[in-house]
Amino acid sequence: MMSFGQDMKVIIIGATGGIGQAFVKEFDSDPNVSQVYALSRSKLDFNSPKVTHIAVDVTSEASLQSAANRIKDDGPFDIIIVATGLLQGSGISPEKSLSALSFENLEKSFAVNTYGPVIAAKHLLPLLRRDRKAVFAALSARVGSISDNRLGGWYAYRASKAALNMMIKTLSIEYGRRFKSSVIIGLHPGTVDTGLSKPFQGNVPEGKLFTPEYSARKLLKVIDQVSPDDSGKLWAWDGLEIPF
Amino acid sequence: MMSFGQDMKVIIIGATGGIGQAFVKEFDSDPNVSQVYALSRSKLDFNSPKVTHIAVDVTSEASLQSAANRIKDDGPFDIIIVATGLLQGSGISPEKSLSALSFENLEKSFAVNTYGPVIAAKHLLPLLRRDRKAVFAALSARVGSISDNRLGGWYAYRASKAALNMMIKTLSIEYGRRFKSSVIIGLHPGTVDTGLSKPFQGNVPEGKLFTPEYSARKLLKVIDQVSPDDSGKLWAWDGLEIPF
Repeated sequence: MMSFGQDMKVIIIGATGGIGQAFVKEFDSDPNVSQVYALSRSKLDFNSPKVTHIAVDVTSEASLQSAANRIKDDGPFDIIIVATGLLQGSGISPEKSLSALSFENLEKSFAVNTYGPVIAAKHLLPLLRRDRKAVFAALSARVGSISDNRLGGWYAYRASKAALNMMIKTLSIEYGRRFKSSVIIGLHPGTVDTGLSKPFQGNVPEGKLFTPEYSARKLLKVIDQVSPDDSGKLWAWDGLEIPF
Repeated sequence: MMSFGQDMKVIIIGATGGIGQAFVKEFDSDPNVSQVYALSRSKLDFNSPKVTHIAVDVTSEASLQSAANRIKDDGPFDIIIVATGLLQGSGISPEKSLSALSFENLEKSFAVNTYGPVIAAKHLLPLLRRDRKAVFAALSARVGSISDNRLGGWYAYRASKAALNMMIKTLSIEYGRRFKSSVIIGLHPGTVDTGLSKPFQGNVPEGKLFTPEYSARKLLKVIDQVSPDDSGKLWAWDGLEIPF
């Protein structure tokens, strides 16, 4: 149960992804949450009086702006989570070596992993409530940490998540100046049993492949515990900070 | 004078930019350098028997590949420097706030600052010599350091340079495994009196606005001194490491 207060309103972008859907369900069952806006490109397979689905394409500013316009009168919001991410699919797969890189695949990865979240922030951050703690969180990844990179490969995914981390830091500076109670963070969900990680689960140590529900619960605990001092940083599912 | 050995061959991409041109002139006057390939979109305003200009568009893979094909028989090369960068111009200017961000401007910034350098690496790194130290360097920037970001703003430029830093780290891992003598680094040139910095020079402390020649000389000293242990990192003009 989230402890920001009663009558919490939340927005999930990427609500039909493995982790996004788990967030929607967790919020739906939380008595402190009164309204959930579930934004995603495809239809949400979940019905509840609390949950409103809105179709959105995170690679289109017009689509993000129109979704924001539709929900703004129901705000302000306590929590906004961007849970989109592209590692493979849409004709791309993570590069094992430099020779696999192309402009086209770079553009696809950055559009979803970097540009989408920050353009979503542009239209949704103004809807965050300002009279008590409120959180904007985007799913990033440990492999987006430059200093933690020891294995190499996965050029586009790694670099687009590093760029997302910079966006989060920069957002936290701009918003921290104006609204002292906002917290803007990146989250590392661990390796979660979803479509995104499916082809790469062979290398995951036993007990480290999480269900979406487990990861979402852990991340919500992080969101519940962070303070404005934690803004601009990257936090793992276990509550530990990840260096950039 | 560079001390890798005699008969050094070098490639500069972005050879008509302020710093790129200064690199070309420094190499031209270095008796240890026998051949300079100067790659740039616009014509190079500098003639020397050592210097060969090749037209290249760093946002086109076909153009980068064709340039690599044209020069590969003259290799291998000791030093390859990517000196391109886009902060303002081409219809964009660095964002003072989130509200100024757009997909279009993000795409323009990342194409020049992130994708171009790594696709250049894809086609030019195979031309680096392997029998003694050889360096691939890309101009990055201190404002691309996530942990060093205190002022905010400049979203697209900052994030595209953070992404470039991740590309450099990832390249250094892939190449470090195969070629023990290659060094792949990012360079921070300081604030240099070029077109890129022109609108922002008002905030530069006295004595900290460098001429392109001064910056290029300092960066060449860094390139001359780095070893394979320094690969994958971001180095400032004064030889100090910048954290990510």
